[in-house]
Amino acid sequence: MRINNNYSKLKGNYLFATVGAKVSEFTKNNPTKPIINMGIGDVTKPLCEAVVKNLNVAVDEMSKEETFKGYGPYRGYSFLINPIIELYKKRNITLDESEIFISDGAKSDCANILNIFATNQKVLIPDPVYPAYMDTNVMYGNNIIFADATMENEFLPAPKKDVEADLIYICSPNNPTGATYNKTQLEQWVSYAIEKDAIILFDAAYKDFIEDENLPKSIFEIKDAKKCAIEICSFSKSAAFTGTRCGYTIIPSELVKEKNKIKDLWLRHQTSAFNGVSYIVQKGAQAVFSEEGQKQIKKTLNFYKENAKLMCEALDSMNAFYTGGKNSPYIWFKCFNSLSSWEFFDVLLNDLQIVGTPGEGFGKNGENFFRLTAFGTKENTKKAMELLKSNF
Amino acid sequence: MRINNNYSKLKGNYLFATVGAKVSEFTKNNPTKPIINMGIGDVTKPLCEAVVKNLNVAVDEMSKEETFKGYGPYRGYSFLINPIIELYKKRNITLDESEIFISDGAKSDCANILNIFATNQKVLIPDPVYPAYMDTNVMYGNNIIFADATMENEFLPAPKKDVEADLIYICSPNNPTGATYNKTQLEQWVSYAIEKDAIILFDAAYKDFIEDENLPKSIFEIKDAKKCAIEICSFSKSAAFTGTRCGYTIIPSELVKEKNKIKDLWLRHQTSAFNGVSYIVQKGAQAVFSEEGQKQIKKTLNFYKENAKLMCEALDSMNAFYTGGKNSPYIWFKCFNSLSSWEFFDVLLNDLQIVGTPGEGFGKNGENFFRLTAFGTKENTKKAMELLKSNF
Repeated sequence: MRINNNYSKLKGNYLFATVGAKVSEFTKNNPTKPIINMGIGDVTKPLCEAVVKNLNVAVDEMSKEETFKGYGPYRGYSFLINPIIELYKKRNITLDESEIFISDGAKSDCANILNIFATNQKVLIPDPVYPAYMDTNVMYGNNIIFADATMENEFLPAPKKDVEADLIYICSPNNPTGATYNKTQLEQWVSYAIEKDAIILFDAAYKDFIEDENLPKSIFEIKDAKKCAIEICSFSKSAAFTGTRCGYTIIPSELVKEKNKIKDLWLRHQTSAFNGVSYIVQKGAQAVFSEEGQKQIKKTLNFYKENAKLMCEALDSMNAFYTGGKNSPYIWFKCFNSLSSWEFFDVLLNDLQIVGTPGEGFGKNGENFFRLTAFGTKENTKKAMELLKSNF
Repeated sequence: MRINNNYSKLKGNYLFATVGAKVSEFTKNNPTKPIINMGIGDVTKPLCEAVVKNLNVAVDEMSKEETFKGYGPYRGYSFLINPIIELYKKRNITLDESEIFISDGAKSDCANILNIFATNQKVLIPDPVYPAYMDTNVMYGNNIIFADATMENEFLPAPKKDVEADLIYICSPNNPTGATYNKTQLEQWVSYAIEKDAIILFDAAYKDFIEDENLPKSIFEIKDAKKCAIEICSFSKSAAFTGTRCGYTIIPSELVKEKNKIKDLWLRHQTSAFNGVSYIVQKGAQAVFSEEGQKQIKKTLNFYKENAKLMCEALDSMNAFYTGGKNSPYIWFKCFNSLSSWEFFDVLLNDLQIVGTPGEGFGKNGENFFRLTAFGTKENTKKAMELLKSNF
């Protein structure tokens, strides 16, 4: 029996686990000092009323023999898939039921989708980026190459013709930088992917934070993207589902490699390695698309956006370089006093009791950068910004 | 971009999808003929009151800012892990929190756990067995060898010293045969696994159907099993969670390969490729372990067991060979009239409107066998048995 020795190539700890351990130690030693947590990208506002109403209905259905639901359809229930189709129709994207797969969240699908591709492939990942992309590709034994995101390109790297790639990760609005690609930039990526016969894995987990109507919310707004892209979406950040767990993945019928429809391979994977998302949770997610639900989640999104605005204003007043904050719940800025990102983390934690996420945890280009999130309370966000302004 | 060409080695359709398609066609052509479904192993009785109560509490918590839960602990909530530890303690098995991983069901873990092992390994799988074991191992590129389960060994194959294996699947009570290993038989498997330096993946999804107190409900009742086994459990069949989705996997600290604790590798996998099970669902599952919950699920289990008893009595009266039915919701019997299992399926569907599962779908040794499940209503079970008795 041999283990998968790719695991020995992984860093010992997952970024947020390391941050969590440092925070635990601080609070253990300083039990009376309250912490302002702007670290992990977790939401704080509860599920909206429409979702709660549907969850209650579903729980009630599950309690009675006549309405009880056992195993659901492998791709998810039509009552949830159809509103997703309608949503995309509004942006002139035509999808059908067989192209949509309900998931227990973007993270699982981002990882498990690698199983349908060969290993030892060239995977192009932005640096910095959400660490799970890299970790899961290391586990699968892929060869990772990086697209450098830096101050020079405003953390939005463009494709380079001389770089070969089989799989391309794009996260827009980006985690951690909040930087968001425009249409022209995404067109370049789609052309590049088609030229290289590559597949784009487009992580759209933060699309609902986009305010600027000119910015694409879906890769499928780009011509020919259906021939080269998979889109992975989540209810986590838009509808407070981080603890409730639901998302969806779109694989267009036009996406074909080696004569195989990728959506068919994924369905084959899901039928053998997954048993669907809880009926109760799917029923809750359905309400996100109701008129009521849309109004309610927008109210919460606006609340977070107000926080992001406060953060932008503070950093503007400090003449700091930053990305995000405008179409994203994340703000990514250069550490003050030329500190490294983990040094800056320690200073913020120990001196100001603000928890953020060190940029280095997202890749080498994050070394002198720092991520703060807009998911806190208004009071804490204000207080943290005052502390930043008076200390740097 | 290359796809994982192991997928081309898979059968085109998943067993239950094929059965479903045949049933759909029949009902389309015969809309007035009611079907007795004893095919897929799905439960029919609703969630018990204690679970529903907890689900309602959890939904309510998720609706309020003060009690809202975002991302949960990677391994699952202590409020669910601790009762599992208590349950095992009653059978003299000591576990600690770090050895238990809450999952969205046994199927996902059975598949995804392969990611932490090397590929191209020798995997020993019983034939017949739950098809997902084989399919997921084909996807991962493992070399499958079969342990033949036949009438001669009462569908409980014993290890053979001259067969080499790295991974060993054991499902007891077995799906599809219902056959259940006794202690002596499992001791042989544990000795064999240790001798071969192999890992046993013990699927205990049906353990709660075991009535005979002498039969092990956990592989860890066997001496030294902690050195060689992983146990995968589910709330699906015992507590009606097929559509609610929750299970757990136990990886003992003593399970070490190539100096790596397997539980650490799995935690590393889960932190990068999974984001935990819905808080609402975990809270519901917690109630399964309450005094109330235990009473209520036992009532439902007894209902299914009564059906199984009716089936055993009918087959006894027909002098049929069968396994299961006693400590399992499945009954596995030799097709009447020497029909092949798909021929028998067609006869039952077309002539008697009974849907079962053809044994061949579970492996070559299932060719002349058939699986019926005890998850139907008492009326339908009785009716189906009368039809069998009067037609064969």
